[in-house]
Amino acid sequence: MNEYSIGVDLGGTNLRAAAVDREGRVLEKISVDTNFEGGRDAVIGDIVDGVNHLKKNLSTHRLAGVGIGVPGFILLKEGFITNSNNLPYLENYPVRDAIEKKLGTPIILENDANAAALGEKWMGAGREVNDLVLLTLGTGVGGGIIMGGRVLHGMDGMAAELGHLTIDPFGPPCGCGNLGCLEKLASATAVESAAMLMSLSAHPMTSKEVYELAMDGNAKAQAIFGQMGRALGIALANLINTFNFPLYLLSGGMLPAWNLFWPELEAQVKLRSFTYRNSKTRIEAATLGNQAGLIGAAYLPFLSMDLGHK
Amino acid sequence: MNEYSIGVDLGGTNLRAAAVDREGRVLEKISVDTNFEGGRDAVIGDIVDGVNHLKKNLSTHRLAGVGIGVPGFILLKEGFITNSNNLPYLENYPVRDAIEKKLGTPIILENDANAAALGEKWMGAGREVNDLVLLTLGTGVGGGIIMGGRVLHGMDGMAAELGHLTIDPFGPPCGCGNLGCLEKLASATAVESAAMLMSLSAHPMTSKEVYELAMDGNAKAQAIFGQMGRALGIALANLINTFNFPLYLLSGGMLPAWNLFWPELEAQVKLRSFTYRNSKTRIEAATLGNQAGLIGAAYLPFLSMDLGHK
Repeated sequence: MNEYSIGVDLGGTNLRAAAVDREGRVLEKISVDTNFEGGRDAVIGDIVDGVNHLKKNLSTHRLAGVGIGVPGFILLKEGFITNSNNLPYLENYPVRDAIEKKLGTPIILENDANAAALGEKWMGAGREVNDLVLLTLGTGVGGGIIMGGRVLHGMDGMAAELGHLTIDPFGPPCGCGNLGCLEKLASATAVESAAMLMSLSAHPMTSKEVYELAMDGNAKAQAIFGQMGRALGIALANLINTFNFPLYLLSGGMLPAWNLFWPELEAQVKLRSFTYRNSKTRIEAATLGNQAGLIGAAYLPFLSMDLGHK
Repeated sequence: MNEYSIGVDLGGTNLRAAAVDREGRVLEKISVDTNFEGGRDAVIGDIVDGVNHLKKNLSTHRLAGVGIGVPGFILLKEGFITNSNNLPYLENYPVRDAIEKKLGTPIILENDANAAALGEKWMGAGREVNDLVLLTLGTGVGGGIIMGGRVLHGMDGMAAELGHLTIDPFGPPCGCGNLGCLEKLASATAVESAAMLMSLSAHPMTSKEVYELAMDGNAKAQAIFGQMGRALGIALANLINTFNFPLYLLSGGMLPAWNLFWPELEAQVKLRSFTYRNSKTRIEAATLGNQAGLIGAAYLPFLSMDLGHK
């Protein structure tokens, strides 16, 4: 009997779920515009419905388990989410147990960036390595660290909060309580707020509009992406000096701006990391796009089985 | 037949070696004032003599191996040292193979801070955990990361170069090529150079003199240790946000200044790490003092045997 697992990705605007086999092939996939304003029961209901829908169509296969990638800090043992900007009503609520009860299937919760890193390791740009760091550049900046083929969780499941690395000790304040977090300097939100501070236009601009302006040659808009590259370069230099891993990946909605931020990023990494200058460290774009989290979430049950549910 | 191993610590001013049994008991210990200016052959000769001296006195025991902690970046596979400020003549020379040949015993090279972290894990402040980060605060700042009870090496053995984390992107230049490295803000050398910049006295002061001035209530001298605490706090917040480990240790010659740098260190970690504020993270003084590297070096052969020479 063929085995498959279901991955769920609870994004900022929608909920996606995919049935994936042992070889990483997507058997079936759905996307639901979740009513996030509907609150806890609506979101949990949508997750359960999505999983059940996939299960029904694959009744001749054996379900290995369900992995769910969610934004926010995950307390792994407790199966809780804390400090999730998008899903406040799921905070400090036994969300894993609630879903397990409704589905009758073991659930593995994972931070969305960790899931994306795992997805890239399994089927994406990190297939050839066992150790990598992923930075997701979207509305915020997330991080995932894969070490020995597994997600680095730390003692509470809160490792790899790389969006909250201090890059500029006197930089802009962050919702986490810190100043000068990477996320406040290298996310879509950071680009948009820099555009506002620089009075790039009379009205608020989206990061895409700032990107287009930069591509058209606007020096101020280009400087914003230079600043982003500088922050990323400092963060990556620190990560390289810490881990000496072979591969560091960037992903997320800001990836199309690669050519705009790369020159400053590379200059900073070269300046700040002896290890980068003297090793075969690669900094590359992730390849699974917004599927990484979904694929990684689906991999969680397989990985857990392989590790004997450690 | 009782088994023992020999640890060697090649410090800035002397060479120490200890014979240690499986339980971490030091059976015998020697210290040699090495003539570091004597060059490569003199230093290698001293290492070989030290090991042979210990071996002779323990001829009824079985030697498991020899571990050597050395300052600088270690290329593990090659058995090379690179970028060692103290031992330039050992750079890019097959030092491991040369010593192995003379001793007829397998040698394991390790960065001195990595060895100290391993020593603290085996017999010191980290005995109860499997995951910790150590920062050594001496002439420079070194780092060691223990993960799952083993040293994190990365792909080349250059992981945990934590003295070269960028703390202040526009800070003082460092020999590694970077600006604002932790080492340039939180080492004895940093304290001494800050004292000079602040004109604390007409003559260059040692870090100990600056410490004594601060303990006597001198506000400028106290500010220097505040700056040191601030840099350490930023570094530790970043490490905590990256690893979510249970334990972070500080060791080295600057440790007596703990009370002078701790208040600012703690304030920075609280400000900059959501994880610190919401977990049972401990930041503590290491307990083995300058024996940590020696003990850790001696542990290397045992650990290697336990891991099946992986």
